Amino acid sequence: MSNNIDTAIQSIEWREDHVRILDQTYLPRREVYSEIRDVGRMWEAIKKLRIRGAPAIGIAAAYGLYLGIKDLPENSFESFIVEVDRIAEYLEGARPTAVNLKWATDRIKSTIHAHKDKDISEIKEIVLQTAKTIHDEDKRTCKKIGENGVELIPKEAQVLTHCNTGSLATGQYGTALSVILHAYEQGKKTFVWVDETRPLLQGSRLTAWELMNAEVPMKIITDSSAGLLMRRGEVDLVIVGADRIAANGDFANKIGTYPLAVLARENEIPFYVAAPLSTIDMEIETGNEIPLEEREQDEVLNYSDAQIAPKKAEAYNPAFDITPNKYISGIVTEEGIIEPPFEKSFKNIFED
Amino acid sequence: MSNNIDTAIQSIEWREDHVRILDQTYLPRREVYSEIRDVGRMWEAIKKLRIRGAPAIGIAAAYGLYLGIKDLPENSFESFIVEVDRIAEYLEGARPTAVNLKWATDRIKSTIHAHKDKDISEIKEIVLQTAKTIHDEDKRTCKKIGENGVELIPKEAQVLTHCNTGSLATGQYGTALSVILHAYEQGKKTFVWVDETRPLLQGSRLTAWELMNAEVPMKIITDSSAGLLMRRGEVDLVIVGADRIAANGDFANKIGTYPLAVLARENEIPFYVAAPLSTIDMEIETGNEIPLEEREQDEVLNYSDAQIAPKKAEAYNPAFDITPNKYISGIVTEEGIIEPPFEKSFKNIFED
Repeated sequence: MSNNIDTAIQSIEWREDHVRILDQTYLPRREVYSEIRDVGRMWEAIKKLRIRGAPAIGIAAAYGLYLGIKDLPENSFESFIVEVDRIAEYLEGARPTAVNLKWATDRIKSTIHAHKDKDISEIKEIVLQTAKTIHDEDKRTCKKIGENGVELIPKEAQVLTHCNTGSLATGQYGTALSVILHAYEQGKKTFVWVDETRPLLQGSRLTAWELMNAEVPMKIITDSSAGLLMRRGEVDLVIVGADRIAANGDFANKIGTYPLAVLARENEIPFYVAAPLSTIDMEIETGNEIPLEEREQDEVLNYSDAQIAPKKAEAYNPAFDITPNKYISGIVTEEGIIEPPFEKSFKNIFED
Repeated sequence: MSNNIDTAIQSIEWREDHVRILDQTYLPRREVYSEIRDVGRMWEAIKKLRIRGAPAIGIAAAYGLYLGIKDLPENSFESFIVEVDRIAEYLEGARPTAVNLKWATDRIKSTIHAHKDKDISEIKEIVLQTAKTIHDEDKRTCKKIGENGVELIPKEAQVLTHCNTGSLATGQYGTALSVILHAYEQGKKTFVWVDETRPLLQGSRLTAWELMNAEVPMKIITDSSAGLLMRRGEVDLVIVGADRIAANGDFANKIGTYPLAVLARENEIPFYVAAPLSTIDMEIETGNEIPLEEREQDEVLNYSDAQIAPKKAEAYNPAFDITPNKYISGIVTEEGIIEPPFEKSFKNIFED
């Protein structure tokens, strides 16, 4: 079964001189790969969710930044760095909530500054290598997250998850889904309740697809059904990803996460978050300061070609919500499981 | 503005010798009316949600029972009543959760027994008159519910509702939606957050359509967005309908109601139920004994022609959940607002 995990689909790959992504807007109906050769196409792919998931858009932004700078003039570092800043800001604007995007562009900018005395052609090569390193590190990180989280899953467990946090959302393996896949691989009898995750159905379209590829037993439910299942004792554990975690542990994740957290506590069910340490934004004190992306009404008012609301009806479409730290049982990271109180735990990690 | 309420669409009408329904499966795209002339078609219309909403299916079952018995032989009461029981049971099987269906068929059966000494042709006429009475009473009841609930709505209010509880779901006016419509008619500045209500989207397809017809300001949201809005203080009150209320106040309603109730309490927001007294089933002690309908997977796995999950994926599709009485601020009925503790309040009403 190890095979099922390790041959997991690559949502993003560097290929000689371009990026190849699996365009997630076509899943599960068709597996369409797109070649991305310039920063404008990468911005569009991130904005339109062709590539999505907090860690994956960090990787995409890193490669995108390289695509944006690779043909810049090489005469002066000063004018080069002005362009780097402009392109990084442009990419960061594609999606505001996940911190990983800015984390990746910041990391590349620091690397550039650290090598400012080198030739610009050499710096460009270093940028590409840094993007590849970010990508490789994410794969290793996600594997570690999966391995570290296995102990949380009972021998026989019904696990509920939301949105997509698998290979599609990361370099490989995933975050919350990596925990589930590793538990299953290690022989635990794991059954997964997959929240469909309206409006864009990342659960029914993407998570269900990944779990079926890995042959893990699962059923899709509407997001509203989670409460009934929890009350009936049919959920042993909830595990979700995160797009940004504040210094006090409050976190932003796909809309619908906060209701799950409240319902889990009301029904005394453990509620875990799985995310790389890079998701923790120590510059943001509480969840209230995390910017929340609002997306187009059309995602709620239409599905594919089906009109599902009256003409001229309006919708409000927030893509994320904030879950306060008090609902979180623990955060699974590549360094282990962080326990509350998170403010103190995070300080120990980041101020060491 | 009174006009907007009183000219509200009739979801079901008796027309000389048949029933005309507005087929809700086509809304909001098309207004398609169907003529129903036999009990088999009525069973199908209830089962397939062409007509839906707890009070409306009570009315539909009453007319359906008449359609089923009107051509029966008229020689013996004994063989007539055997057929009546059989047809009533058949109709009750179309949807198990709402008590109104059985309430209506039981009421007609009692009426038949009360007139057992009359000619069967006369009894048939009495059955039709009883069905019309149930229909008329429901209109008056729903108007009263609306008027009685107005006091709960603040002068300026953001109200959140779930599923459809309007004219489409009742004889006229609705239950929870009747309260909202009457508050708006009386000049309260009412804004409505309409939960889309997956999987069949009764919120975005039907409630949004009714509110737009009545020109009440509203926006559609995904069911998962309610938590964020409540946490942000953008919901002053939640009001929903009910399909069956147990003797202790626990109630069954559209899947997703229980999460709203938990979120409302967590955020200290009043949570009201609006329903006719006929929804209260004193024979059922607690919510645990209310039968919950589970519907076909296909409602979750496909939308219209769009495949929204992998082929061979499975779904679990419960249509209702149970909300324990402790989350309910009050129940708006035609006789006024019932306050907790409901067990005691109900006894006072039904044992007087």
